[in-house]
Parts: sequence; C-alpha cells; structure tokens
Amino acid sequence: MSKVFLDISMSLDGFIAGTNDTPEQPLGDGGTDIQAWLFNGEQPSDYNEFFKLSSVNKKIFDTTISNTGAMVVGRNTFDIVNGWNGSHPIQGVPIFVVTHQAPAHYLEEQTSFTFVTDGVKNAVQQAKKAAKGKDISIGTANIAQQCMKAGLLDEIHLHVSPILLGKGTRLFDHLGAGSIKLESLQVIDGATVTHLMYKLIY
Amino acid sequence: MSKVFLDISMSLDGFIAGTNDTPEQPLGDGGTDIQAWLFNGEQPSDYNEFFKLSSVNKKIFDTTISNTGAMVVGRNTFDIVNGWNGSHPIQGVPIFVVTHQAPAHYLEEQTSFTFVTDGVKNAVQQAKKAAKGKDISIGTANIAQQCMKAGLLDEIHLHVSPILLGKGTRLFDHLGAGSIKLESLQVIDGATVTHLMYKLIY
Repeated sequence: MSKVFLDISMSLDGFIAGTNDTPEQPLGDGGTDIQAWLFNGEQPSDYNEFFKLSSVNKKIFDTTISNTGAMVVGRNTFDIVNGWNGSHPIQGVPIFVVTHQAPAHYLEEQTSFTFVTDGVKNAVQQAKKAAKGKDISIGTANIAQQCMKAGLLDEIHLHVSPILLGKGTRLFDHLGAGSIKLESLQVIDGATVTHLMYKLIY
Repeated sequence: MSKVFLDISMSLDGFIAGTNDTPEQPLGDGGTDIQAWLFNGEQPSDYNEFFKLSSVNKKIFDTTISNTGAMVVGRNTFDIVNGWNGSHPIQGVPIFVVTHQAPAHYLEEQTSFTFVTDGVKNAVQQAKKAAKGKDISIGTANIAQQCMKAGLLDEIHLHVSPILLGKGTRLFDHLGAGSIKLESLQVIDGATVTHLMYKLIY
C-alpha cells in the first residue's frame, strides 16, 4: 500500500524557505542553510554533493529515493524552481503539479510533469496509480498543509537544520485549530541535520 | 560560567500553548498535549508524575533541575499561571519576572519572585548573580525571543512533542529576518518526546 509522506528540510524555527524566494534564489534570503546538509555546504544546485553525504545522511537520502514512486508538488514551487528546467533533478519519477490552470507550453513539451487542476485529493490519487506500489512524496509546504487538513498525509519526514531563520515560509501554517496526534517512528542524529519521522494519527 | 538556556516543550508545529490560554487553562486549547511527556498523560498539575518518567526522560528532567540556579520568565506567563500560587512547583530557585510594573501585593507577600522592570538584559544579569555559578533557565517564549534578539541566549533545550496543534502561541516568532546559526549538542529519542539541544552561534 502506497504511503503518502511529506519529505522536507526545515530550519529549527519552522521555515522551509526564507523571504524573497524567487526563481533567482528559490530558497529565499538565507534559505540555502535549510538544505545545506544535502550539499555539504556547497551550492544547492551542485547535485554531485549528494554522493558525498555522511553515511547516516546518505542512507536516509537513498532510502527516500528508492521508496518514492511519484511526487506531488504545488504550482508556486514549480514556478519558483522554473519547473526544474524540465525534470526533477533528484527523482526520476512522475511528478504531479497541483495548479488552477496548466501552463500550455509544458503540456506539449514535457512528459515528466502532469498538471492536476481538480485539487490535491485527485493529484494524490493519480500519483498513487503512477507510483505502482511505491510511496508518494509530498515536496512542498502548501500541498502538505492541504494533505494534512484532508487527512491524506500518512507520514512526515522532517530534516531539521541547525539554523534559526527568523522569517520566511513556514512549513506548519494555515492548519487552523484542531490537533493531529503523531507517533514518532524514528529519530536520527545526522550531525549536520536531525531527522524526525512521524506517523499521523487522524 | 553560568549558561543561559531556554528549556521548553513544543509541539512539532512550533507551539508552546494552544489558543485561549487563560488562568483556567494555562496551556490553552489542546495545549496539555505539548507537556504530556512530563505527566505521563495525567493532568499537568499532577507533579507526582515527574517521578514516573521513563529513565531517559527522567535523566534529562533531573539534569535540568540540578543545573538550574535561577529562572527568568515573562509577566504574561506569570499571570496566566497565577504566579504558580506563590512558588514555582518544580524549581526551588529564585525567579525573575520581567514586567513593566511590579504587582505591589506580591512584593510584600512573596520572596521567591523578583520583579524586574528594566528589561530582559538586567533580569538575566540579576539571575546570574542569584544562580551562584549554576545556569539560568528561560522558561517562556516571549523572554526567549528577546534573549535571542539580544544575543543573550546560549543554548536551546527543546522537548518536541508528537502533536500538530495547528494554532496557538509560537515559540519562534517575532524574531525578524537575520539568521542565527546553531550547533547541535544532543539529540535524544525519549519515545513520547524528542529532546533537541542546540548551542547558539551569534
């Protein structure tokens, strides 16, 4: 059974990007520190750095990659990273982009992205089909929030970076009152990052 | 040399209390879950539960108690918990309450609280004197934020509870732009809570 999991790096104070996130600096002011653990302090576009991760962090990274059969992301992130220039740099899996309106030029030129205009529930459903038994990775904050509200998210895999950013885009926002209980699955000290895995109990 | 440390329980989504925190329910709506690890699921006022903590959690709790020589708290919290009815239930140490104006009736009747009306820096200074070489515990979010902004906070000891509260009082708020780097000191899986200890690098 495919699990739907949020997999995201976050500053200790809860931000997944700094202010002023633009295509020129997708992670915003100071935001590269949030994902620095993935890049050994190098620039976030240097994907060769993935192969230099410490064994603890590499194991977590590799496990995520091998378990993921499809991704669901939001349109805002998709635009900010300029559609990853055609295909996701890490995941060679189908990606479902939740949006109000599909960008016409992508529909013709791209095959790795599917634009879903009828909501997050349908995006997750389509992703599950495409994942062929593997898990669905939710990669953006807004979609994760929608999934939590709709009871669609099974697990949270947080990579907490040792930084207080002060300001930016919060991962846990707009959820409104009403608790969701969690069960801690794993706590892993990755030295440059702390991995916290939870199961959501609705 | 006395360290100044924040020691506080927080939901995974960053709240230290729910909405509607009042003297009748100091932790607000759903907020008792944030500190549930301390009370084994019992009511937060049942201090006997401290002695039933698991060995991992008890060790952390006891270490904090024995290292703490004084506390600094904010007036809002002090009022909400009704001055802990005269003395702090856990810490038998001098407590410095940062406030705009000292409540006259406490000045006469109390000796365990000192009201500091000239800011957080002076409160920390007074607390350091009173602590006689031991550490200073910052116990409330607002004072912690002021200490971080002023570069007064040395360490953060977070107890992350497995709950998404959705709404409430955020621990990391009002900090404004400008990163503070952290160094991870300890990551401890306490099963019902995750302990994250950091050093702040200004």
